[in-house]
Amino acid sequence: MQLTILIHCPDQTGIISAVTGFVHQQKGNIVYLDQHVDKQAGVFFMRLESEFEQPVQLDSFTEGFGQDLAQKFDMQWEIYPDWYRPKMALFVSKYNHCLYDLLSRFNSGELTVDIPFILSNHLDLKPIADQFGITFYHVPVTKKTKEAAEDKQLELLKKHEIDFIVLARYMQIVSPKVIDVYPQRIINIHHSFLPAFAGAKPYHAAFERGVKIIGATSHYVTEELDAGPIIEQDVTTVSHSHSIKDLIVKGRDLEKIVLSRAVQLHVARKTMVYNNKTVIFS
Amino acid sequence: MQLTILIHCPDQTGIISAVTGFVHQQKGNIVYLDQHVDKQAGVFFMRLESEFEQPVQLDSFTEGFGQDLAQKFDMQWEIYPDWYRPKMALFVSKYNHCLYDLLSRFNSGELTVDIPFILSNHLDLKPIADQFGITFYHVPVTKKTKEAAEDKQLELLKKHEIDFIVLARYMQIVSPKVIDVYPQRIINIHHSFLPAFAGAKPYHAAFERGVKIIGATSHYVTEELDAGPIIEQDVTTVSHSHSIKDLIVKGRDLEKIVLSRAVQLHVARKTMVYNNKTVIFS
Amino acid sequence: MQLTILIHCPDQTGIISAVTGFVHQQKGNIVYLDQHVDKQAGVFFMRLESEFEQPVQLDSFTEGFGQDLAQKFDMQWEIYPDWYRPKMALFVSKYNHCLYDLLSRFNSGELTVDIPFILSNHLDLKPIADQFGITFYHVPVTKKTKEAAEDKQLELLKKHEIDFIVLARYMQIVSPKVIDVYPQRIINIHHSFLPAFAGAKPYHAAFERGVKIIGATSHYVTEELDAGPIIEQDVTTVSHSHSIKDLIVKGRDLEKIVLSRAVQLHVARKTMVYNNKTVIFS
Amino acid sequence: MQLTILIHCPDQTGIISAVTGFVHQQKGNIVYLDQHVDKQAGVFFMRLESEFEQPVQLDSFTEGFGQDLAQKFDMQWEIYPDWYRPKMALFVSKYNHCLYDLLSRFNSGELTVDIPFILSNHLDLKPIADQFGITFYHVPVTKKTKEAAEDKQLELLKKHEIDFIVLARYMQIVSPKVIDVYPQRIINIHHSFLPAFAGAKPYHAAFERGVKIIGATSHYVTEELDAGPIIEQDVTTVSHSHSIKDLIVKGRDLEKIVLSRAVQLHVARKTMVYNNKTVIFS
Repeated sequence: MQLTILIHCPDQTGIISAVTGFVHQQKGNIVYLDQHVDKQAGVFFMRLESEFEQPVQLDSFTEGFGQDLAQKFDMQWEIYPDWYRPKMALFVSKYNHCLYDLLSRFNSGELTVDIPFILSNHLDLKPIADQFGITFYHVPVTKKTKEAAEDKQLELLKKHEIDFIVLARYMQIVSPKVIDVYPQRIINIHHSFLPAFAGAKPYHAAFERGVKIIGATSHYVTEELDAGPIIEQDVTTVSHSHSIKDLIVKGRDLEKIVLSRAVQLHVARKTMVYNNKTVIFS
Repeated sequence: MQLTILIHCPDQTGIISAVTGFVHQQKGNIVYLDQHVDKQAGVFFMRLESEFEQPVQLDSFTEGFGQDLAQKFDMQWEIYPDWYRPKMALFVSKYNHCLYDLLSRFNSGELTVDIPFILSNHLDLKPIADQFGITFYHVPVTKKTKEAAEDKQLELLKKHEIDFIVLARYMQIVSPKVIDVYPQRIINIHHSFLPAFAGAKPYHAAFERGVKIIGATSHYVTEELDAGPIIEQDVTTVSHSHSIKDLIVKGRDLEKIVLSRAVQLHVARKTMVYNNKTVIFS
Repeated sequence: MQLTILIHCPDQTGIISAVTGFVHQQKGNIVYLDQHVDKQAGVFFMRLESEFEQPVQLDSFTEGFGQDLAQKFDMQWEIYPDWYRPKMALFVSKYNHCLYDLLSRFNSGELTVDIPFILSNHLDLKPIADQFGITFYHVPVTKKTKEAAEDKQLELLKKHEIDFIVLARYMQIVSPKVIDVYPQRIINIHHSFLPAFAGAKPYHAAFERGVKIIGATSHYVTEELDAGPIIEQDVTTVSHSHSIKDLIVKGRDLEKIVLSRAVQLHVARKTMVYNNKTVIFS
Repeated sequence: MQLTILIHCPDQTGIISAVTGFVHQQKGNIVYLDQHVDKQAGVFFMRLESEFEQPVQLDSFTEGFGQDLAQKFDMQWEIYPDWYRPKMALFVSKYNHCLYDLLSRFNSGELTVDIPFILSNHLDLKPIADQFGITFYHVPVTKKTKEAAEDKQLELLKKHEIDFIVLARYMQIVSPKVIDVYPQRIINIHHSFLPAFAGAKPYHAAFERGVKIIGATSHYVTEELDAGPIIEQDVTTVSHSHSIKDLIVKGRDLEKIVLSRAVQLHVARKTMVYNNKTVIFS
C-alpha cells in the first residue's frame, strides 16, 4: 500500500525530520520526497510518497498525523491512498484535438480518472463523446441563458460528485460562481505562452507581432482572466513563412500535449498552489 | 566570386523568372534562393546567392540589374559581394557575458566584421576591451549629459564609419537621434520572450508570474521601447525552485546565444524588415 | 487552381530560370519556391507551388514540362494538383497512441488522405477502427504464416490501390517483398533518436546508458532495419529519476507527434529522398 | 554557515529520518533536500543543504555524522562547507570556444573555482591563457612522447593539487594512468548526442546519416572511450540544407553551453555516479 502526503506550512527547522520520523515510526518506507522553501514568503512545501508493507488504517494514520504534526507545525495537508481515482468533468466547445487527446489517454489507461460526463455549449463534439461511450450534456450559453446555464453546470457537477474540471478549449469564460466551488480545481489551456497574448485570438496577435516562438499554457482558473497559477507551458518555433492558419495548426499539438501534461500532474497530486503560483513536484 | 542579392517589391507574376533569367544571362550559377510572399501586404521578398566563375564587374552588374529589373518591378534591392565586411560598434554597460561571447567569436574568425570600437557609459568592461585589443570609449550618460553623450556617440559612429550597432546589454535607452541614423541597423537583446515582460526587470516579473519558461529576444531597435522587429528568440525551462538569481544566471546563456545568432543573421544579410516584422531567410 | 512541382536533376546553371520561365509562360504565379543543391553529389532539388487563375489542362502542362524541361535537364519530376488525395494504409499492432493521433487528425480534416483500411497482426485495436468506422483487417503473423501474411498484405494493398503505408508502431519487420512495391512510401516511427538505440527495446537501452535526452525518429523503411532516410526527429529531456516505464510514457507523446508530422510532410509532398537521406522542403 | 551533504548507501527504511534528525539536533535548518532510490540496484542517494546560524565545528560534525549514521547505514558520504573552492585544470588543443566560455564565466565570478593552469599539446591557445592571466603549459603529445607527456601531466596535476580536470575539446585520449588518479573527476565534452556517433568526426557521421537533430554530451571520462557516465546533453535541429561546416558551427554553441553546465553541476556537488550513470540533483 502506498500513501502520498502533501504539506505546506510556515517554514521552520525540524519539519522534514518530524514528518519522516512519523512515517518511519508507522513502518512506512519513504520512496520519494521532494520539498521546496519559498524564502520570500517563508513557506515550506513537501510531497512525500511512502510504501507500507502492512495495510495502513487510513483513519488512524490521518488522525495521528493531525495530532502529532499538523497542529504543531500549523500545516495545510492532504493524504491520498494509491487507490484514489478522481472524477473529472470535461468542458468543450467545437475544437476536438484536446478532447481526443485526453480521451485516448483515458481509454489506454494512461489517465487514471473517472469521466462522468462531457459538457458543451455546442453539439459538434457529441459524436466523439458517443464514440468513447461517455455521457454528453449540451448546455447552450447565450447572454440571456448564461445564469441558468451556470446553475445547470453546478447541478451536474454536484450530482456527479466531480472533483475537478478540465476546460479542453471550452472558449467560454467560467463564472465566479463555478470557480468558487472549484478553487484550484479548474484546469484551462490557453493558446499562447502567457503572459504574452492573453485574451482572445492569441495566434493572430502572435502573427501580428512577428514572434519567432509560439506557445501554450495550462493554468488553474481564477477570476482574473488568463492570470491564474501556471501549471505547464511549452513552445515551438515559427517563422515569417507561417500564416495565421499555420500557427493555429502548429499550436494545436502544443495545446493538447501541454493540457494533458497539466492534467496528469494534477491527477498525480504533484501540484500545489501558493500566492498565485504553483509548486510542481518532480 | 559570389554575390548576394536581396529584393523586396510589390508581388506580381514573373519576378523569380526575370531575376533568375538575368543572373543566368550574366553567367551566374544560383546556389541558393529563398523567397517569401506576404499575401496580406502583397509584398514579395527574395534572397539569392550566385556564384560566378569569371570575375564580375560589380558596377555594371548593378547598373544592369537596376535598369532591367528594379525599375520594372519597383524593387528595393541590395547587392553584396562576398568580400563585404561590415563595421560593427558595440555598446555595453556592466554585464560582460554578451560582450565576451561576441568577442570570442570575433577572435575565432567566426564573426566576419570589423569592430572599430566598444562604447560604454561605465568603465567596468574596459579591461575586456583591452584584453581583446579593441578601442574603448567611455561616454558616461546622466540626465544632464544625455544630449551631449548622444552627440559624442554620433560623432564616433560617423568618424569610424560604423555600419551597424549592437547593444550587448547596454541598459540605456537609445535616443531617436541615433535610431534615425541607423534604422534597422541597431540590434538589441532583451532578456525576456517578448512581448511578455517588456521593459525593465523582466526576470523579476517572470518570477512573480510563476512562468515555467523564460526567454530572450533579439530585435532591431525602433523608437517604441522593446517593440521593434524581432530577429531571434529562444527559451529555456524553469521551475518554482529557481530564485530570481537563478533565472538571471540561466537567462545569461540565452541572451548571449540569441544575440550572437541575431548578429550573425544580420551580417550574413539574411534579415529583411517589413511592417515591423522580419523576414529571416534560411 | 494550384500545382506542386517536385524536381531533382544533375546540378547545372539555368535550371531555376528555365523552370520559373516555363511556369510564367503558362500564366502561373509562383507562390512558393524552395531549392537545395547537394554539392557533394552534384544534385539539384526543387519544390515549387504555382497558382493559376485559369484552369490548367494537367495533361498538356505535364507534356510540355516533359518536352521543354525534363529531357533537357535530365530531371526526375512529379506534378501534383491541389485536389490530389493519397490513399493511406495503417499497419498497427497493440499500441494505440499513434493510431489515435492519426485518426483524430483524419477526423478533424487536418490530415487530407483517404484511409481504406487498418491492418494488424492482433485484434486489440479493432475497437478503435470500429469507433472511427474504418475497415479493419486482422492478418496474424507467425513464423510459419509470415509468407502467406505478406501475400495477403500485398493483395489488400493492391485491391485498395494504396499509395503509401504508415507503420503506427507495427512492431513487425516489413518484408522486402512489400518494401519493393512501396519504395520510399512506407513510413515508420522508431522510439529513439536514431542512430542511437536502433533495434528493439530502445527505452531499456536508453535507461541502461543513462542518457539525459530521449527521442523518436520517423523514417522511410528500407531493407536495412532502422536505417532508412530520416524524415523527422524530436527529443525530450529525462533524468535519473525516470524509470523505464516513465521513459515509455514520455516517449509515447514524442512518437505520436513525430509520426504525424512525418505523415503530414509526406502527404504535402514536402519530402524527397536521395542517397538514403531526405530533403525536407519548408 | 552552510553545509552540503552527499550520501549513497544500500536502501532501507529510516535513512531520511535519521539524517534529517541528526542535522536538526545539530541546530541545522534544512534548506534543500533531494533524494533518489535506484530500485533495481537497491541504492539510496541523497543531497542535502543545511544552514547553521551558529558556526559549526566541521571536524566534530563530520565525526558525529560518521559515528551516528555512516556506519549504521553503510554510507558513502561527503560533506562540503560553503567556502569549498575546487582547483580545476583545463586541457585544451586548438579549438577555443569552450575555453573562452569557461574563462569568461570564471572572470565574471560565475564559476567559483581556482584555475591553476591550462595545459595543451599545441601552442595555439596560449594567447588566450595570457589574455586571462592564467599559467599555460605546453605538453606536446606524439606517439613517441606520449608516456613522458602523461608523466609530465601527472606531475603538474599533483604539484598544483588539482581537484578535477576539464577536457575543453582536448582531442587526445586521456591515458588510464591519469584516469585512475581522477576517477569521476575528468569531465569531457563530446560533440554528439551520445551514444550516437561516438568516436571521431561525429559531425561528418551525422551529416552522412541525415539526422534532423545534432547534439553534444558532457560525461565523466572512463577507460572505455565516450562511454562514461553522462552528466548533461543538449541538442539543436538541423536540416538537409546544412553542410558539415554548418553543423560544426551550430555544434560549437551546444558544446560550450553543455560543457559549462556540466562543470557547474560538478562544482556545485550536484552529481553522483553509480553503475556508470549519474544522479544529477536538482
